Amino acid sequence: MSGIVVASNRGPVSFDRDERGGLVAQRGAGGLVTALAGVLPGRDATWVAAAMTDGDREVAAGAAVPDAGFPAEMRYVVVPPDRYDAYYNEVANRTLWFAHHYLWDTVRSPVFDRATEQAWEDYVAVNRAFAEELAEIPGDPPFLVQDYHLSLVPRFLRELRPGARIAHFSHTPFAGSTYLRILPARIRDALLRGLLGADVLGFQTGTWAENFLFSARAMPGARVDLARSRVTLDGREVLVRVYPISVEAPHLRQLAQTPEVRKLRREIARIRGDRALLLRVDRLELTKNIVRGFLAYESFLRANPGWRGRVTFLALLSPSRSEIPEYQAYTDECLAEAERINREYGDHGWTPVHVSVREDYPEAVAALGLYDVLLVNPVFDGMNLVAMEGPLLNRRHGALVLSRNAGAFGRLGRYALGVNPFDVAETADAIREALEMPPPERTRRARGLARTVLANTPARWLGRQLDDLSRVKRPG
Amino acid sequence: MSGIVVASNRGPVSFDRDERGGLVAQRGAGGLVTALAGVLPGRDATWVAAAMTDGDREVAAGAAVPDAGFPAEMRYVVVPPDRYDAYYNEVANRTLWFAHHYLWDTVRSPVFDRATEQAWEDYVAVNRAFAEELAEIPGDPPFLVQDYHLSLVPRFLRELRPGARIAHFSHTPFAGSTYLRILPARIRDALLRGLLGADVLGFQTGTWAENFLFSARAMPGARVDLARSRVTLDGREVLVRVYPISVEAPHLRQLAQTPEVRKLRREIARIRGDRALLLRVDRLELTKNIVRGFLAYESFLRANPGWRGRVTFLALLSPSRSEIPEYQAYTDECLAEAERINREYGDHGWTPVHVSVREDYPEAVAALGLYDVLLVNPVFDGMNLVAMEGPLLNRRHGALVLSRNAGAFGRLGRYALGVNPFDVAETADAIREALEMPPPERTRRARGLARTVLANTPARWLGRQLDDLSRVKRPG
Repeated sequence: MSGIVVASNRGPVSFDRDERGGLVAQRGAGGLVTALAGVLPGRDATWVAAAMTDGDREVAAGAAVPDAGFPAEMRYVVVPPDRYDAYYNEVANRTLWFAHHYLWDTVRSPVFDRATEQAWEDYVAVNRAFAEELAEIPGDPPFLVQDYHLSLVPRFLRELRPGARIAHFSHTPFAGSTYLRILPARIRDALLRGLLGADVLGFQTGTWAENFLFSARAMPGARVDLARSRVTLDGREVLVRVYPISVEAPHLRQLAQTPEVRKLRREIARIRGDRALLLRVDRLELTKNIVRGFLAYESFLRANPGWRGRVTFLALLSPSRSEIPEYQAYTDECLAEAERINREYGDHGWTPVHVSVREDYPEAVAALGLYDVLLVNPVFDGMNLVAMEGPLLNRRHGALVLSRNAGAFGRLGRYALGVNPFDVAETADAIREALEMPPPERTRRARGLARTVLANTPARWLGRQLDDLSRVKRPG
Repeated sequence: MSGIVVASNRGPVSFDRDERGGLVAQRGAGGLVTALAGVLPGRDATWVAAAMTDGDREVAAGAAVPDAGFPAEMRYVVVPPDRYDAYYNEVANRTLWFAHHYLWDTVRSPVFDRATEQAWEDYVAVNRAFAEELAEIPGDPPFLVQDYHLSLVPRFLRELRPGARIAHFSHTPFAGSTYLRILPARIRDALLRGLLGADVLGFQTGTWAENFLFSARAMPGARVDLARSRVTLDGREVLVRVYPISVEAPHLRQLAQTPEVRKLRREIARIRGDRALLLRVDRLELTKNIVRGFLAYESFLRANPGWRGRVTFLALLSPSRSEIPEYQAYTDECLAEAERINREYGDHGWTPVHVSVREDYPEAVAALGLYDVLLVNPVFDGMNLVAMEGPLLNRRHGALVLSRNAGAFGRLGRYALGVNPFDVAETADAIREALEMPPPERTRRARGLARTVLANTPARWLGRQLDDLSRVKRPG
């Protein structure tokens, strides 16, 4: 196979003009980008992403590209801002993200109307533009299309390049078949058919893959083989596979050694003093279950007065999607809950919860080195990388309290303390158990977690997809 | 088979003391009761229900039972009020009902805590008390256990009477397998195992049956044959079957001829005048989607100014579960939405929406005779009996706008105008299409609806379950 092509909404590199008018590359820091940065070199890779900046648009228009320090040729899809907004905010993040994570308050939301139809047309148009850009790439590379922003790309690309090898990977969960019916029928049908344009559909866990298969079963014309995890539609066979994503350990451990992170680690150690450190590191995201995390901590403090004053809960929250009203409201609720707990339980010498709301990845890396207990309790989560980064970075044999609804639970569950994220009593009990775990047990589990994460590399995640794609039977 | 035994939370008859101290029977009016009243005579039927009144408790304690005019012997399970409240309100109606109808605002609710565990113990105890009462009934009758209140009864009864023939019927939807994981693991597992104590599990539609099967697939020790719709657990085979419930047409049409209903029909006809009548008849229930119904009507009025002043929307809403806070809030929202529309669109001669909030079944029967369009748009609904009663009672070849997420859509969909209940644009279009449908088309569809409802009788619903039970292989 010749090279590889990755397509994602946000690319690993974006270009800006500096003061002297030169194009300067900015590296992105998302999980996918970091994971692939280590495995693309030597692969003749091309990466197609939406243009985010004027610099990206200039590159798309043919400006000379300075070295971005990223091992892939960048190509940008240029979309008018209004169209991008509808595609990205309205459809991808407010509709598909909500569907796949079961986020709606169904009695009241969603309310689909004429605006939904218009936004959907924009989503279709952006997906088509991606497919057209991909179709222009010469040779016969495998196409690796990423995530719920680009659900229709496999089908559109298939129409333009019938013989192409196409994989799509869902980083999110995938909604159950009844819940997916909340979407307008036309949209749901287009999504399923869009994805089924691929040869291989990848999911983080068997549960999400199965949810997709259950929905496909109800599609007219589709034949689903549950036992072999295949769907046949329009005479083509689509493999449905599980490729749990992983984190790039060497990169992460390198980052943990930088002077900046060392300095931050000393600062956090000072805040903690001789108290135990309960930590969460999350985007300020509806799925992350931050409020119930605080409620569980409160329930723990209430039931275990002996722990008051002896533990600090540090919540490092990075702002996310603040242009969406639901996220603004949720941020306020999270902060109010933390303040209430500090008011009710704190005293002059002790603040039960420290909340930091800012974008500061080095601070997160520093804190992950120091926790005694890491709380990762999303309501639903495709995988959750913090649950993997923590055990790699932690220096105290810290324990992991992990939601059973995070994809990561499939791998890490046997070494973590599993919780139902809706059950604050169970979560409170797990916090206590994690804090009071005997040292040999802590060590055994912490080692198991780190070993499991290390055994699953991004290279393996990518390689398995490429292997499956290479075995796809080609027409003719 | 000897006789039959029905178990449901609320029975068909309740007893009160009259002024002179005598026990007087009060007939209930629920769909199940009305459906079975016509088919039980001559069957030697026993009905086990929770005692609701002091009179019921006296009957349970052995008081002489006056003739209740209902063709079944009543037996009551007596439960202390606190326990009943936890079982009925907290677990059945606030937890299981929410789960099966996808009602949670998952970012915020549910929050399970110690109180959940205690309420669950009460649910277990009440289910056990039902099983004990059932186990005392002599002979070898088929046991027909009803609905989500009594999910554990099949298993408990199986423990007490291993050879009994037991069916359980779910009048509600059944939650998808991922959504069901919102429940604490212990509760979900007990629910599934509780139901699987039956020989036959009945559901309203194939979708709900399939959701149950998907959840059973994930149970340790269970073997699920999707193609034959069977589950094997602990060496026992359980059939999973679809028995769509129906309404008792003769009873309904008789009611429509009473002087009370005739008078109400004349009153409603006067309110309507020469305007078209859009009608909804619902309990004030979170699943019924009343607010989006009003939004769709508003969207229709906005897009079709020619219809303003020419149509009246009559919403007959009966109070429901008003002790649950979510229901109080929703009632306020429904009324506020109707008032807003009347303020914005009404004028001196025309009130766009008439809302009536009261328990008045005769009024509903009267109104169902007169609609031009019946709106039935639940977010999710096991079956929905209004969608069946309407076509039986209507005298104007009225059209039916029906949610595709109501179980009734499976049967009536081809003659109804199907809508996605979350899509107010589609619902608005369907209201217009229904109002403007050419008379021959209206007639054809109205006849098709009535014919379909008439062809499916409660006797058939019951008979198919008894047939399947009679074919169950007995141990030994």
